[in-house]
Amino acid sequence: MLGWIDLASDQDEVLDAIDAFVAEAAPRFDDLVVLGIGGSSLGSIAVLSALQHPARALQGAAGDGLRVHVVDNVDADVVAGLLETLDPGRTLVNVISKSGTTAETMAGYLAFEAWLRDGVGEDRFREHVVATTDPEQGILRPLAERDGMRTFSVPPSVGGRFSVLSPVGLLPLALGGVDVRALLQGAADANEAAARPFDQSVPKRAAFAQLATARRGATISVLMPYSTRLRRLSDWFVQLWAESLGKAVDRRGARVHAGTTPLPASGTTDQHSQVQLFNEGPFDKVVAFVRLGEPDRDLRIPAPREGLEALSYLGGRGFHELMNAEQAATGHALAAHRRPNYTLRLPRLDARHLGELLQTLMWQTALVGERLGIDAYDQPGVELGKVYTYALMGREGYEATRRELEDAGVEA
Amino acid sequence: MLGWIDLASDQDEVLDAIDAFVAEAAPRFDDLVVLGIGGSSLGSIAVLSALQHPARALQGAAGDGLRVHVVDNVDADVVAGLLETLDPGRTLVNVISKSGTTAETMAGYLAFEAWLRDGVGEDRFREHVVATTDPEQGILRPLAERDGMRTFSVPPSVGGRFSVLSPVGLLPLALGGVDVRALLQGAADANEAAARPFDQSVPKRAAFAQLATARRGATISVLMPYSTRLRRLSDWFVQLWAESLGKAVDRRGARVHAGTTPLPASGTTDQHSQVQLFNEGPFDKVVAFVRLGEPDRDLRIPAPREGLEALSYLGGRGFHELMNAEQAATGHALAAHRRPNYTLRLPRLDARHLGELLQTLMWQTALVGERLGIDAYDQPGVELGKVYTYALMGREGYEATRRELEDAGVEA
Repeated sequence: MLGWIDLASDQDEVLDAIDAFVAEAAPRFDDLVVLGIGGSSLGSIAVLSALQHPARALQGAAGDGLRVHVVDNVDADVVAGLLETLDPGRTLVNVISKSGTTAETMAGYLAFEAWLRDGVGEDRFREHVVATTDPEQGILRPLAERDGMRTFSVPPSVGGRFSVLSPVGLLPLALGGVDVRALLQGAADANEAAARPFDQSVPKRAAFAQLATARRGATISVLMPYSTRLRRLSDWFVQLWAESLGKAVDRRGARVHAGTTPLPASGTTDQHSQVQLFNEGPFDKVVAFVRLGEPDRDLRIPAPREGLEALSYLGGRGFHELMNAEQAATGHALAAHRRPNYTLRLPRLDARHLGELLQTLMWQTALVGERLGIDAYDQPGVELGKVYTYALMGREGYEATRRELEDAGVEA
Repeated sequence: MLGWIDLASDQDEVLDAIDAFVAEAAPRFDDLVVLGIGGSSLGSIAVLSALQHPARALQGAAGDGLRVHVVDNVDADVVAGLLETLDPGRTLVNVISKSGTTAETMAGYLAFEAWLRDGVGEDRFREHVVATTDPEQGILRPLAERDGMRTFSVPPSVGGRFSVLSPVGLLPLALGGVDVRALLQGAADANEAAARPFDQSVPKRAAFAQLATARRGATISVLMPYSTRLRRLSDWFVQLWAESLGKAVDRRGARVHAGTTPLPASGTTDQHSQVQLFNEGPFDKVVAFVRLGEPDRDLRIPAPREGLEALSYLGGRGFHELMNAEQAATGHALAAHRRPNYTLRLPRLDARHLGELLQTLMWQTALVGERLGIDAYDQPGVELGKVYTYALMGREGYEATRRELEDAGVEA
């Protein structure tokens, strides 16, 4: 399952196919609905939040790239809200599931497919669907081939939470206007950094910082970017870290109940929320900041008028300068309270540096897993919940499992 | 600082003033920009995400209630993105700061005020601003009185993180179309429940569940609503819990470094992200689910067509049924892995039941703080960071503190 490393360099054909698809789709659609959960959506959400215009939803057809709506839950209110607001004639649906049987994703797909058939007709709905799925296995591949629907492949050697730079993420990102070649170039930069000696290697040093603090009692790993646009990056990181390292047994089968808990935070906002606990609560956290060297566009704080003189220290300064002063101040305050923290520095928040950051965090996770002797690429702990869900939904062995649940006092 | 309890019953005059303001503002504005951070915005974000139409941003002027944009960070990209997208002539700005000196909020205010003066003129920009601030102290109150700007008051006996049901939250929520009287009615229901004997009191039982599991090693308190619309509720809860209970000393001055760490999760989405760690990682968590009895509007999953027979168990079932089956299954799987969890049940996600949930979580927090002998209403651990920020921004004693920071190796 190490295919994620090579995604940076091995995707020329994929990129050409994506280019062709985007060129064809861009004039035909205003909105893209992504149906995917976990690794099939968290990466796209993180990158689009970072790189699309922050008010993209308000711009309508005038904006750059399609508006992207991710359906990553079986929430009837949200699905119905989209169905009654979007125009099926101008909407493309990207269904993403390796097996084609992910219950949440496919429930959404059945709803959107019916809506498209109704809205654009039985003959044409297939032109509004593109499936990202296993190249050979599962139920979506044969369906798409029979129906002539467009498809992209989830590479078999890439696990869901490591798949943002595969077609799983690249297709919706390219449709959303992201420079996906630059993302991959950044990932290649991180691969190079991972191969360097320790002192010059951010991936290795970040992995070490996590291991060293965990050994000294940090059971919680905070990721705290100082940028609203990077807020959703933390959700992607949470899955990567939690699902890769949270394991009951190690590779030898010894019970370890491993894994520190990833905790999302956002600067400066969380200085007014979580930082009180970080500074004064239990000594159980390490904080990794992300800080930008330059903003995309800075904004000067206007000089305050009469009556607001108490704010005169802000007048004429940059928003970005204030943001970074607050990051430095928060790091120093944490240190003064004897709380470990370190800072990942991005020269700027563009596709290339974001790709480098994503790949760096994947390296960090893989290296820590390796060091702990953990299989970072499986997720055995989610199976039982799926079995119970199937039982409750009557998929198989329903009655027997239902009785078991009732005996345990669980409401069906 | 126990004023939050009485907000449910003592606000007749405030509600009348809000009604009058909304009646006047609704036809004049399409967009509301809320400038506030921490307790001045997290509650509004939580409630609007839950109760406004899920696709409100896409609906433009046609939708119900103003479109609300919360600026809770000093991110130049986000502020500039709004300034270049919104129409100043149709935008109302609600600046929320008790003192009027919160750096992040007031930096944003200076930018939006300059934009309004430019866009609607020196004579009229004041009609586009409403300030929510201390009734007597601070710099915004005298400014607003001098200029004839509209104001609402932050009650002095209500702390920021307990203020969602004061004008801090009620004004933007009412402008966004939320039934704020129903919210307060729900809070009154929770107040009644808090006065009942333990067995019939959800607030008391929830507080006990947190205390009992913390004593047995749960250092992390997960809030996991099964509703996309409740995803941002967790961010509000994170501040409430972290800032109230994360304290270095107790009321007697003994060093305790108290506080369990609140962790947001969202069902079903996080079954594909965090649940692996919850089930198999360290035994350090308690999970509180939130589950809805009925959805606002359910959606039936259409029957799958030929080729998708593997999904036939989903056909004809409700999205809501699937959502709640997954919640029950996840709770049962956690129990099978010996992980403590409990469920808060809302009959439905309307303003009244959401108000009850908010007030219940405030009661839970206050009761746990009381039991631990903690002052749940101060936040001494954020002061040092503010001092360093002022120093770095040259507000006072800049040079001395800058040298201190440089000696400590912190980048200014």
